Amino acid sequence: MTWYALALGAGILSVLYGWVQIQSIMKAPAGNARMLEIAAAIQEGANAYLKRQYRTIGIVGVVVAIVLVILLGWKAALGFVIGAVLSGAAGYIGMLVSVRANVRTTEASRHGLNEGLKMAFKSGAVTGMLVVGLALIGIVGYYGLLTGPLGLSLGDEDQKREIIDALVSLGFGASLISIFARLGGGIFTKGADVGGDMVGKVEAGIPEDDPRNPATIADNVGDNVGDCAGMAADLFETYAVTLVATMVLGGIYFAATPYIAEIMMLPLAIGAVCIVTSIIGSFFATLSKGSTNVMGALYKALNVTGVLSIGGLAIAIHTVLPGGLGGTLEGAGALLGLVDPATGQAADITGWHLFACGVVGLFVTLLIVVITAYYTETKYRPVRSIAKASESGHGTNVIQGLAVSLEATALPALTIIGGILLTYNLAGLYGIAIATTTMLALAGMIVALDAFGPVTDNAGGIAEMAELPSEVRTTTDALDAVGNTTKAVTKGYAIGSAGLGALVLFAAYAEDLSYFTARATEGSFFYNITVDFSIANPYVVVGLLFGGLLPFLFGGMSMMAVGRAAQAVVEEVRRQFREMPGIMKGEVKPDYGRAVDMLTQAAIKEMIIPSLLPVLSPIILFGVILVIGGPGEALASVGAMLLGVIVTGLFVAISMTSGGGAWDNAKKYIEDGHHGGKGSEAHKAAVTGDTVGDPYKDTAGPAVNPMIKITNIVALLMLAVLAGH
Amino acid sequence: MTWYALALGAGILSVLYGWVQIQSIMKAPAGNARMLEIAAAIQEGANAYLKRQYRTIGIVGVVVAIVLVILLGWKAALGFVIGAVLSGAAGYIGMLVSVRANVRTTEASRHGLNEGLKMAFKSGAVTGMLVVGLALIGIVGYYGLLTGPLGLSLGDEDQKREIIDALVSLGFGASLISIFARLGGGIFTKGADVGGDMVGKVEAGIPEDDPRNPATIADNVGDNVGDCAGMAADLFETYAVTLVATMVLGGIYFAATPYIAEIMMLPLAIGAVCIVTSIIGSFFATLSKGSTNVMGALYKALNVTGVLSIGGLAIAIHTVLPGGLGGTLEGAGALLGLVDPATGQAADITGWHLFACGVVGLFVTLLIVVITAYYTETKYRPVRSIAKASESGHGTNVIQGLAVSLEATALPALTIIGGILLTYNLAGLYGIAIATTTMLALAGMIVALDAFGPVTDNAGGIAEMAELPSEVRTTTDALDAVGNTTKAVTKGYAIGSAGLGALVLFAAYAEDLSYFTARATEGSFFYNITVDFSIANPYVVVGLLFGGLLPFLFGGMSMMAVGRAAQAVVEEVRRQFREMPGIMKGEVKPDYGRAVDMLTQAAIKEMIIPSLLPVLSPIILFGVILVIGGPGEALASVGAMLLGVIVTGLFVAISMTSGGGAWDNAKKYIEDGHHGGKGSEAHKAAVTGDTVGDPYKDTAGPAVNPMIKITNIVALLMLAVLAGH
Repeated sequence: MTWYALALGAGILSVLYGWVQIQSIMKAPAGNARMLEIAAAIQEGANAYLKRQYRTIGIVGVVVAIVLVILLGWKAALGFVIGAVLSGAAGYIGMLVSVRANVRTTEASRHGLNEGLKMAFKSGAVTGMLVVGLALIGIVGYYGLLTGPLGLSLGDEDQKREIIDALVSLGFGASLISIFARLGGGIFTKGADVGGDMVGKVEAGIPEDDPRNPATIADNVGDNVGDCAGMAADLFETYAVTLVATMVLGGIYFAATPYIAEIMMLPLAIGAVCIVTSIIGSFFATLSKGSTNVMGALYKALNVTGVLSIGGLAIAIHTVLPGGLGGTLEGAGALLGLVDPATGQAADITGWHLFACGVVGLFVTLLIVVITAYYTETKYRPVRSIAKASESGHGTNVIQGLAVSLEATALPALTIIGGILLTYNLAGLYGIAIATTTMLALAGMIVALDAFGPVTDNAGGIAEMAELPSEVRTTTDALDAVGNTTKAVTKGYAIGSAGLGALVLFAAYAEDLSYFTARATEGSFFYNITVDFSIANPYVVVGLLFGGLLPFLFGGMSMMAVGRAAQAVVEEVRRQFREMPGIMKGEVKPDYGRAVDMLTQAAIKEMIIPSLLPVLSPIILFGVILVIGGPGEALASVGAMLLGVIVTGLFVAISMTSGGGAWDNAKKYIEDGHHGGKGSEAHKAAVTGDTVGDPYKDTAGPAVNPMIKITNIVALLMLAVLAGH
Repeated sequence: MTWYALALGAGILSVLYGWVQIQSIMKAPAGNARMLEIAAAIQEGANAYLKRQYRTIGIVGVVVAIVLVILLGWKAALGFVIGAVLSGAAGYIGMLVSVRANVRTTEASRHGLNEGLKMAFKSGAVTGMLVVGLALIGIVGYYGLLTGPLGLSLGDEDQKREIIDALVSLGFGASLISIFARLGGGIFTKGADVGGDMVGKVEAGIPEDDPRNPATIADNVGDNVGDCAGMAADLFETYAVTLVATMVLGGIYFAATPYIAEIMMLPLAIGAVCIVTSIIGSFFATLSKGSTNVMGALYKALNVTGVLSIGGLAIAIHTVLPGGLGGTLEGAGALLGLVDPATGQAADITGWHLFACGVVGLFVTLLIVVITAYYTETKYRPVRSIAKASESGHGTNVIQGLAVSLEATALPALTIIGGILLTYNLAGLYGIAIATTTMLALAGMIVALDAFGPVTDNAGGIAEMAELPSEVRTTTDALDAVGNTTKAVTKGYAIGSAGLGALVLFAAYAEDLSYFTARATEGSFFYNITVDFSIANPYVVVGLLFGGLLPFLFGGMSMMAVGRAAQAVVEEVRRQFREMPGIMKGEVKPDYGRAVDMLTQAAIKEMIIPSLLPVLSPIILFGVILVIGGPGEALASVGAMLLGVIVTGLFVAISMTSGGGAWDNAKKYIEDGHHGGKGSEAHKAAVTGDTVGDPYKDTAGPAVNPMIKITNIVALLMLAVLAGH
């Protein structure tokens, strides 16, 4: 029970850390009246948007909760509500801090780069630590409630199923918030960005963030609701779902062992130690004297966290498992189906095996960070090739960008393949789960790096709008350029971990299925069903193809939604310029609120249908194949669909997020004076590429991640419903 | 033996038809001296390119043939050579005709739309009928040689394997030619097109095909080597491989039945009757009096062919199968694993079941044609939405185009899913094979529609360069616009059929595998191996992911190749403009040959590495997993890889070909006077979209099709090698 308290304590520590940082941020000076006025407009817009978004999600959530009460009982429904509320809270509080830290970062940047960096990172760290802290509190707390006061026992099969269903529902709650927040926020932010740029930069020839552009406040609002709140919900979900899936998988595999309680605790303990290492690491995000290497400062924080986490992982495993690191987990080799090639007998699994899996997870994180940085930083071939291609025009810029985006999928995929092969050979499917859990245990630090981005982006915008001296803008620009890379890196991490996490979920689906069919009694749905998961079964092929089409269709729908939202912004901005000629002369203040309102409505409307696609698809496929091929084939087809959505989703998402980041930085590279610099034809072509990359990297690409997982979770819950739990 | 002679006869008829049409084309007047001069330059360039391409492929081919002699014996190597040579011949002769029909189409267009249409279609029909004719002659002829003079018997298991290996090698020969021709031709044509447009249209402001553009002859050469010869090799391959795969699958399933010879003959008979229906249909490609509906005339030819093919299919099945349409194929239900839900016994399979599968194949073709037309014709929402988005700039044009390209994958995928479900329930995996065979039996007509495109494209170019009256250009433009749609439609058909065809190949892989493992003797590779194809096996997941990454990596590589080739053309054209100022004044003739030579070198160099990717990947994956997981897991992983490459390849290819077609026609729609018409800002944005779409739809997208199949065939041959045949 010690680790239970420690895990809860780590979650609380994380929230406390956030609270202390918030105090420190709020105490910092917020600049002059003009800056405050701008910041207030952003705060108001972001608040209004998120309130409306959460209200809409709330309506869907209540309906889903009621359905869950009916189908799976109130414990599952309560889990769903906990997951949804905590995910929403992490995003909301993060956004509240972010829209206050932005102006303070501008103010701090007047005093120096390191001051600006520290303020922006502090805000990012609040969001990051809230994400992991609230998620851990939610899971640990509810698990404790279920096994403690609610009296469910892991020893009783039916009661264990109730615990599992409740935890999976918690993941579902987080997922549902996440897909709406990712997509709604993504449509809002890129509608504002693309639409504002089309009229502002291209037609009116005014710089980005110019206060005369009526869409400029909306653009800054978008950074917060998309990159901060949306990202927070996404990682909350990935974190929660992975921890839950690892618990579920452990709960199934080790059901009959005496150390089942320890296995259930292991992912929570890993999460707990990594919260501590992330907090320690966060203090290293500072420039050494005289240095201007902002990226280096952030990498330092990440590296410290990573290295400490290796030690933390060893401690967690050593103290949680009955035999410690060196002890053999009795019977584990046989349960996981691992054979020792030397003896031909079931292999011995020790704590060291699980430790090695965790370390592989950390290395997968490291490799994905390095690969994404290679594809998106201005110093390497991919970004430079796009910049070079911009010389011959818009078309060649886009062709090269698309080529880079396609190519950028290969190495991350090979990394994931390598991770699967290594960890599977160490500890079977459970090894993959431990690797993914460890990978995600760093989410607090990773979200901190990411949530740093919108703050610096806003800080630059506020500097521009408040007409501060150009040195301030130079400082915020230096911070912002780093923000672009960290954003791309985080997305690579999110989708990579989502791919692995989804495999764990799929494994849970397959194991659940064999559990239910093995125990089915006459008359129940699973009675006498055989599920043939072989890829030679055409129903499996059908499932793979159907799953495979979802990321493409979803990507198409969300890109179109951004296009429509941007189109609406373009028309609104043109209207304001036309009807209020004083705007361009700087005499009349544009009506910022109209653009924000319009985008709010558009984003909320546009997010509904694509979000429902992954929720309904498994149910529809199941129904159709049930009629054509019967229950066994329907279950096989749905299982294959889960893999199909991962197989194409992984590539679609990585290509979109890396390609988008590369386009963005190719533009920055040209703006730094290469290939003709700002205002050249190459620059215009690069702006086109950047515009194309915007919805790619900030709307469609990242939303694929929760989409993959929601499909998997709905399928898991469907099994539970069919089993009559 | 009657059908054997009939099939051979149909193949010969097809070649004869081509010969007669060639005579008729050559007899037609070829225009004035200027036109002849231009046509001669195109002929020379196309000839020089193809000779070099085939020489390079020849070197690779000789190496592969030697390897095959060593690994599989001379019969397999001979099959490989037959497939390669005939595929090359179909493309080469088609190209020779195409570069002669182009100028005659220009000349005919001086006399009227119908005259131009008939000339261009005649040329397309030559290519189309040569493709199916030579393929059928190759398969029927070699099959006859193997079972006749070479004395191999279907009744002897070892001898049957030799027949199968030889036929699969024939498919491999066709595939290898196809991927090189598709990719090399695609890089050539789009390098010329994109490069020429970037300098000509965008920088110098001269129209497409202006004789002052040094890249204009290369552009016209490209149409022939890419869209004509490349497409011909591609469809030759798809046709040959599908027929062979259906024979292989039939040979495995029905090995022990008394009607094995009839089953082997069935796909050949279906191919034969559809040659006859395609020839009949080709006479309907003519305008009714007063009509200008060119697309309608082509659809008429296709529809007549389709309807007649239903009848032909019935005749073929009725006369080939021992019991005719109504007769039950003894034991077939059990062999195919089909259960009658009413009785719980093995289902009865009659000729009618196979007939229904064929009809489903025809309907899949119809639906894919209709869906692709919806996504690429100017009258429907997708193209118009791209045109509308062009109003707000380059960026929104590309965003909308990408959105359409992603969305365009959904309905074709659902169609294929529907086809799989229907035919599988009718006649198991063999039903899918029969549907695919029937779908591809129409290839002659479909290639005719496609090869019509480059002829009309060239005809317009010649009219422009020869400075013929503008009415001629208007006529050729009307023909060319239709060519754009038929090209997109054909590509949808090619990739759809490739997806189904690859499933058949995968089924052959799986069945081969169980055949080899069941018969393996101690000491042989397959002895005591169990292959777990379940998607819950991580090695299967690894295979799916590895296969899934191939189309993305391949797409990225080929887009980059086009970018580099275009870049080289841009520089060459700029150099000529700079060094010979007389060119722009029309006083000096540009050095067309230099651009052609340069592109020839670039295309040949660039096609090698991406082409080897699918050849080597199955071998590498097999080797790696063999070391890590052992032989059973290696075979499972390679099998899953075959499916993975289909799952992502299908979507990548459809999105690229449909998206590219939509971009192209959005530009045409604007040029027709919408959204500001030619020269407007919207038009400039649409030109960018068209440029992006070019390598998408004409290089990367279509080359995915042979890539998928070559991966599958290499895997099949690997099994044969491992089995020691």
